[in-house]
Amino acid sequence: MRIVAGKDILRANDQLAELNFRRFSDAGVFVVNLLGSPGSGKTTLLEALCRYWSGRVRMGVIEGDLAGSIDAERIQKLGIPVVQINTMGACHLDAAMIATAANELELEHLDFLFIENVGNLVCPANFRLGEHLRVLLLSVPEGDDKPVKYPVIFQEVGAVVISKKDLMPLLPFDLGRVKGELRQLAPEARVFEVAAIRDEGVGEVAVFLEEARRNFGKVSFGGEVGRE
Amino acid sequence: MRIVAGKDILRANDQLAELNFRRFSDAGVFVVNLLGSPGSGKTTLLEALCRYWSGRVRMGVIEGDLAGSIDAERIQKLGIPVVQINTMGACHLDAAMIATAANELELEHLDFLFIENVGNLVCPANFRLGEHLRVLLLSVPEGDDKPVKYPVIFQEVGAVVISKKDLMPLLPFDLGRVKGELRQLAPEARVFEVAAIRDEGVGEVAVFLEEARRNFGKVSFGGEVGRE
Repeated sequence: MRIVAGKDILRANDQLAELNFRRFSDAGVFVVNLLGSPGSGKTTLLEALCRYWSGRVRMGVIEGDLAGSIDAERIQKLGIPVVQINTMGACHLDAAMIATAANELELEHLDFLFIENVGNLVCPANFRLGEHLRVLLLSVPEGDDKPVKYPVIFQEVGAVVISKKDLMPLLPFDLGRVKGELRQLAPEARVFEVAAIRDEGVGEVAVFLEEARRNFGKVSFGGEVGRE
Repeated sequence: MRIVAGKDILRANDQLAELNFRRFSDAGVFVVNLLGSPGSGKTTLLEALCRYWSGRVRMGVIEGDLAGSIDAERIQKLGIPVVQINTMGACHLDAAMIATAANELELEHLDFLFIENVGNLVCPANFRLGEHLRVLLLSVPEGDDKPVKYPVIFQEVGAVVISKKDLMPLLPFDLGRVKGELRQLAPEARVFEVAAIRDEGVGEVAVFLEEARRNFGKVSFGGEVGRE
């Protein structure tokens, strides 16, 4: 009898993620895995990107949550195609869930597919979904010590979005400290600052995403944007 | 050959957690498993409790983090016995880690042992550590939709501390919604509101903990405070 251990599961997930990656690339859709703690502002950033692009860019969204469809309802109100995944208690999305959810979307009609992962700074780090880019949100109220305390996930991203920057004057948050840690952990990662609820800084993120999409023919699986 | 599946791991963890529970109870130390998202204010609440009790109550702390010892250094500065657990990537503490860490503390000399879990609203829910009480922090910036989106962990707690309440006037946060959800998910759980950085509301939490400790001879394993 063969025992399927953690490493095998990750390898099987990677194989399926690579199939997703090819499928997304063939369809011409640039896929972003959106990561962050619970309440870091992932859905709010998607809403702000939708307002910024206002129909010029075709977005689709896959929402990952343990339960419910609160975030998917927010996205649906914007007229964006959206699929909700309920993980039934699982702490992260995996490539199989994404393969299934993607069947519900017309990929060829999308420029971007955003996958909002389960709010969690630990477990999603090890599970690739077939994305071209990982973007991690770090909200100002979470504090400037998060890269030191959750280094694995920060090492895996192409961009870090410091969210809720309008709260920076009110809270102890040393942006220089965060940027210094990121230079160590993820020297290739771009860093942005946004207050998505006020539409501040969202344009810079959108321009970066558009630029990444223009170059994504050059990206191969395992060499996602921002990965060395 | 026997396959050790998820359920077996949880059962083994529960058995060890029960041993921890008896050891803590015999030593007369009331043990609190402190849960919450990254940056929800767990360490800041411990600092505020230390200020509130100012030597009248003997605290000990076990800090759980993926990496580093930032939180343990904060606690040590207050003159409180503290042990840092580095989970080496694991997303939650387990009973074996706690059994080992507890060896580094003089349990008989403590009134309270606080175990600060890894910042995570998902995985720690399933792993009992031998605690008498679970306290979950929900910070105002995380948003009022967290009980609906992470119901499992909210169902398992004896108290919910709404932290960073000083930000409530600035952010969209419907306290009534949270309390309504909690009445469904955890009808036995006490709800507190604190701004620990300003020492607001901390006294109520401290009094509740002291009261729980006075009654903890009545608590049996599996019937932790707030559990039905």
